[in-house]
Amino acid sequence: MEKIADIIQKNTGITFTNIEILQTAFCHTSYANEHAKEKLKDNERLEFLGDAVLELITSDFLFNTYPDKPEGQLTRMRAQLVKEPSLALVARKYQLDQLIQLGKGEEASGGRFRDSIVSDAFEAFLGAIYLDQGFARVTEFLQQALLKPHLQIIKVINIDYKTLFQEKVQSQGPVNIDYRLIKEEGPAHHRLFVVALYLDDQLVSQGQGYSKKSAQMAAAEAALEAMDEKGKL
Amino acid sequence: MEKIADIIQKNTGITFTNIEILQTAFCHTSYANEHAKEKLKDNERLEFLGDAVLELITSDFLFNTYPDKPEGQLTRMRAQLVKEPSLALVARKYQLDQLIQLGKGEEASGGRFRDSIVSDAFEAFLGAIYLDQGFARVTEFLQQALLKPHLQIIKVINIDYKTLFQEKVQSQGPVNIDYRLIKEEGPAHHRLFVVALYLDDQLVSQGQGYSKKSAQMAAAEAALEAMDEKGKL
Repeated sequence: MEKIADIIQKNTGITFTNIEILQTAFCHTSYANEHAKEKLKDNERLEFLGDAVLELITSDFLFNTYPDKPEGQLTRMRAQLVKEPSLALVARKYQLDQLIQLGKGEEASGGRFRDSIVSDAFEAFLGAIYLDQGFARVTEFLQQALLKPHLQIIKVINIDYKTLFQEKVQSQGPVNIDYRLIKEEGPAHHRLFVVALYLDDQLVSQGQGYSKKSAQMAAAEAALEAMDEKGKL
Repeated sequence: MEKIADIIQKNTGITFTNIEILQTAFCHTSYANEHAKEKLKDNERLEFLGDAVLELITSDFLFNTYPDKPEGQLTRMRAQLVKEPSLALVARKYQLDQLIQLGKGEEASGGRFRDSIVSDAFEAFLGAIYLDQGFARVTEFLQQALLKPHLQIIKVINIDYKTLFQEKVQSQGPVNIDYRLIKEEGPAHHRLFVVALYLDDQLVSQGQGYSKKSAQMAAAEAALEAMDEKGKL
């Protein structure tokens, strides 16, 4: 009963008063359905609330950080910040994905690695902080976790390193770019891919990820960094 | 300069500290464009913020008012409450529509009577209260203005009185329902229609509104009320 509260305390610094609300935040509907007898609440109502908490705190932050940007730009930045990959990224950084209770089928099919499930739990967690600790505390947490590193997060989620790399190297003359899958391991729902990036058959970098595309992106990013260090860009 | 603050104080009970922010809330983009030299800010950024304020306060209210309703129902109720006609209804009740500053063209084409412009200004006004008076004060105002009378507002906005009336009278046997336009007056962009409702050529009720449909709805509602009083329903 106390365990989840201890982990949250350790990972986020937040000490919950109402442990039940915290447990509800991490109870996926598939788990509640499997434990119907225990009449567990799933996290959907908290997610409804947390989504609105996230929206206001993010809007307030952008409104005050960018006093001269027009509404359209603020709206686009907000959309980037609150979208699933951003929230899942932050949730994983605090290892909140490990706390989600999933039904057996959902766990077996890799639900824990899906951005949608992780970001929903993150929103529910925000709703729980808001209810248990108040608006000021959840604002403080979100500023630290999501908003202050926001430009970096927007960058991580958006930059297409493959295209960027291709544009850079081909601007220096024609060259053949080849991504080669050199290893894959782990279960089907959580398969890790390792990709090597070759320029004219010469190994430049490697990257890994849980999809071939993200492994290629990682390889391209590593190559860009290496070129940057050599002063080639 | 002080005038708008006095009106707001009288109509809503809120005493603004920052009058400029209040003026910005009611400055439509068409007015700001016409007065480009004065470098007025329009209300779009405040609307961006106020929209999020509205979303959270409404979500919080529904979450706590309906502890047993599933997320889907809360989401549908929230959508009803925060949609343009609801917000415009509340704004007009507090005569906030009269405070909007519009460009000449927008005024001439009836912009002041458009729900979209009135509800946007209402959201901007919420953003202004939030910035000037804080979260607790804007929550108090919204609860009083929108959320506590929410079931009534949802009803006003949704009920199709014409269909309801038709169902009621035709359940008592076949009868001919006829809406007749008996008067229209005022300028084209703000034309008032008066409609009389006849049952088998007998006058039952009258209704008026700024569209033929809303006049018919008002007539049907009046007829339902009259039947209700006579114990016919």
